[in-house]
Amino acid sequence: MKRSVENGAKHHVWGAPLLDSSLLGQKSHGFLGNCFYKPPEFHYLANFMSMNPVIEAIKSRRAIRSYEDKPVPGSAIQTMLEAATYAPSAINIQPWKFTIVTKKEEIKHISDIAKPLLLQTLPDIADEGLIRFRSALANPQYNVFYNAPLVVFISGAKSTYAINDCSMAAQNMMLAAYTLGIGSCWIGTANLAINTPKVKADLGVPEDHEVFAAVIFGYPKGGFPKAPEKRPPQILKRID
Amino acid sequence: MKRSVENGAKHHVWGAPLLDSSLLGQKSHGFLGNCFYKPPEFHYLANFMSMNPVIEAIKSRRAIRSYEDKPVPGSAIQTMLEAATYAPSAINIQPWKFTIVTKKEEIKHISDIAKPLLLQTLPDIADEGLIRFRSALANPQYNVFYNAPLVVFISGAKSTYAINDCSMAAQNMMLAAYTLGIGSCWIGTANLAINTPKVKADLGVPEDHEVFAAVIFGYPKGGFPKAPEKRPPQILKRID
Repeated sequence: MKRSVENGAKHHVWGAPLLDSSLLGQKSHGFLGNCFYKPPEFHYLANFMSMNPVIEAIKSRRAIRSYEDKPVPGSAIQTMLEAATYAPSAINIQPWKFTIVTKKEEIKHISDIAKPLLLQTLPDIADEGLIRFRSALANPQYNVFYNAPLVVFISGAKSTYAINDCSMAAQNMMLAAYTLGIGSCWIGTANLAINTPKVKADLGVPEDHEVFAAVIFGYPKGGFPKAPEKRPPQILKRID
Repeated sequence: MKRSVENGAKHHVWGAPLLDSSLLGQKSHGFLGNCFYKPPEFHYLANFMSMNPVIEAIKSRRAIRSYEDKPVPGSAIQTMLEAATYAPSAINIQPWKFTIVTKKEEIKHISDIAKPLLLQTLPDIADEGLIRFRSALANPQYNVFYNAPLVVFISGAKSTYAINDCSMAAQNMMLAAYTLGIGSCWIGTANLAINTPKVKADLGVPEDHEVFAAVIFGYPKGGFPKAPEKRPPQILKRID
């Protein structure tokens, strides 16, 4: 079937669902069938479909710890938050709630609470990495949030699977951010601080909730470096 | 700049990185710049780029609990496992290890261990949903893995953040699966069973490891239903 590019093109508008299902594959069997406009020339289609942009994004996203001093637009924050809410959750409870912080003083304040708490938990051994990390934590300039322009805290009522669900929501946010040119990093070193009663109150988190994740976002200084390769999957056992 | 479709097309091969960076945007500022071939006609480009296939996948993936009796190909399993390994992890520890089970008797066996353990934990109250669930669990035919042709168990050495990291790995697997037309569902109801010493030994999981996730995969019977809308993001507080 041959269709003009113009004909197909008008069926896509930003963020809107596909309007004409006749342009899609006959039967919807998943993402590629659902989402991709079928281009007119088959030889082009073959190459176009050969890309899997989701897997590409998963494999090229990487942690970013150096940011431009430039705010993350509100529309991008909204897109990222919506992506978070589409994570799976146990019995569809959707436990995630968000605190959005862009105020530099507040971010630095939480970092300053985090640093001594972290120092206390580090084992007192003469490991080189630990020695460097101790010295960083003792430096008043050091910010556990890497001076990112945006920190999003993900909280939820304490329940068995909220930690799993909120982690998947965080991963959705980081993947969505990446597609918008926005870098991210999960800041595990903030975990102790953000679950103190004082910081929870600051962040608007109810007492019976836990803060499961602190994730920083911003435009990466100098663009995205290539993601390092990960170790091949380690298979403990196959039972076939 | 006008390029023929043929000229651009030859630069993509299945799974291979882009070979000619001159076809890409001038500077790489994230996913769209990195991954997308720049098509020749601008009016087409404008519409093409307006799709965000990653966010589309995040928002249209949904749990699948009814599967065709058809195996998941080994190449798809490998792609999904690789996607898992590209999740972020605390201090890049990459804690995930995998057990792949396709043997129906083994899957049913673990389900049969899970059901009485689950029954014990259910509160003894006259809730309609709970009554239905109790009766399902008492039915010998009921399989907590929904007779899926593939179950992947994700384990890791016990450590503070392994549960977060393995949850993000699970989400990467489920997103990758979706792009391959493969449905999935995290089976939280298996959690008690899969952490008993007997089942851990069966699954090849070392004693000092925890099994963080059991995820089922397969081709959805009747295709993918439309994903239900989720609640809008709940923002506890903004600090600007």
